[in-house]
Amino acid sequence: MSLVRVTNFSISLDGFGAGEPQSFEAPFGHAGHKLHQWMFATWQDDAPFNVDLAFAKRWDVGFGAEIMGANKFGPPGWQDDADWRGWWGEVPPFHTPTYVLTHRPRASMEMEGGTTFHFLDASPEEALAVAKEAAGDLDVRIGGGSSTLRDYLAAGLVDQAHLVVVPILIGHGTRLWDGLEALEETYAIEATSSSTGVTHLSLTRRSTGPA
Amino acid sequence: MSLVRVTNFSISLDGFGAGEPQSFEAPFGHAGHKLHQWMFATWQDDAPFNVDLAFAKRWDVGFGAEIMGANKFGPPGWQDDADWRGWWGEVPPFHTPTYVLTHRPRASMEMEGGTTFHFLDASPEEALAVAKEAAGDLDVRIGGGSSTLRDYLAAGLVDQAHLVVVPILIGHGTRLWDGLEALEETYAIEATSSSTGVTHLSLTRRSTGPA
Repeated sequence: MSLVRVTNFSISLDGFGAGEPQSFEAPFGHAGHKLHQWMFATWQDDAPFNVDLAFAKRWDVGFGAEIMGANKFGPPGWQDDADWRGWWGEVPPFHTPTYVLTHRPRASMEMEGGTTFHFLDASPEEALAVAKEAAGDLDVRIGGGSSTLRDYLAAGLVDQAHLVVVPILIGHGTRLWDGLEALEETYAIEATSSSTGVTHLSLTRRSTGPA
Repeated sequence: MSLVRVTNFSISLDGFGAGEPQSFEAPFGHAGHKLHQWMFATWQDDAPFNVDLAFAKRWDVGFGAEIMGANKFGPPGWQDDADWRGWWGEVPPFHTPTYVLTHRPRASMEMEGGTTFHFLDASPEEALAVAKEAAGDLDVRIGGGSSTLRDYLAAGLVDQAHLVVVPILIGHGTRLWDGLEALEETYAIEATSSSTGVTHLSLTRRSTGPA
């Protein structure tokens, strides 16, 4: 069965998925790369075998499509730059159809390595229907950022979510948890701390729900 | 050496130490008792031996004084009730001098079992000096709630803090983390998840600091 999943989404102890302001020079604002050091560590050749590695290695397994918010494609204002091709270089790491939610869509962009960016001015439900169709029997990843992920969680459209709580306090930015009161009624939430300091949260939807 | 410590302070995944509104009927507002079920479980005669129990059993060990915010003594407006003697019954569980921070102090109250409530209209630093004097060689507990604890953490006055993250989302109330950006620079933060679902955070001040 095709699932809707979130993998490796990092937040601070105070719940922020990014700092601010986000810009070309600072994609995560004042948070810099602090939220993702745990993941970078798993990319090293001599990375220790631990729970971080176990989760991180599943990041891209089994997906046939991705949905991302506009800020994951570029800095605020990228819609004004006709030449902008995304943060991700010419060979983006998605290798699937990738749907960028934006109120100002543009023509699709076929990149190397299997990623094609499509731009949708659509509701979460509408975008998911398109992505599921594209993914076929494979899963759909909700790639973030915080507000996109929040919308999908609030709507109960996510089957499984892997979040990573990093023991830092960002203080301001985009908070994942806003508006998700009582999410534990919809999702079983399991916590697994790592010797590296981060805590992996595994959210599993309690029923198959409306999706 | 006498330490300033926090023990068993529960917060939700989204960082709230209590819901709202707080009242006589609902000391933790709409959060009810959800934040403290993990602790109640450790009080049962047949409580399993686990990390929750290990932390919980240390709740009252080694303290010679406590400091608490006004809301931990009573519901909003208790200052208007001359007969109010605290949430805690005639034998409060503190068994030490206990300093209640309020802008409307009243005469001290000697309870049974060793607790005496004193009421201070004082800064965190001033209250701590008084409590340390009373505690002698023993430790001082900062008992909460969220805003009191936040003030002491922000001032770097806490030596060790044990927080417990409960996997629920309260959505609104008093948030512990507000204004504590970059706390990780002052405190080493270790996370230990429990099979019961909660995650214990151990904060240790990185240097002896200004206290």
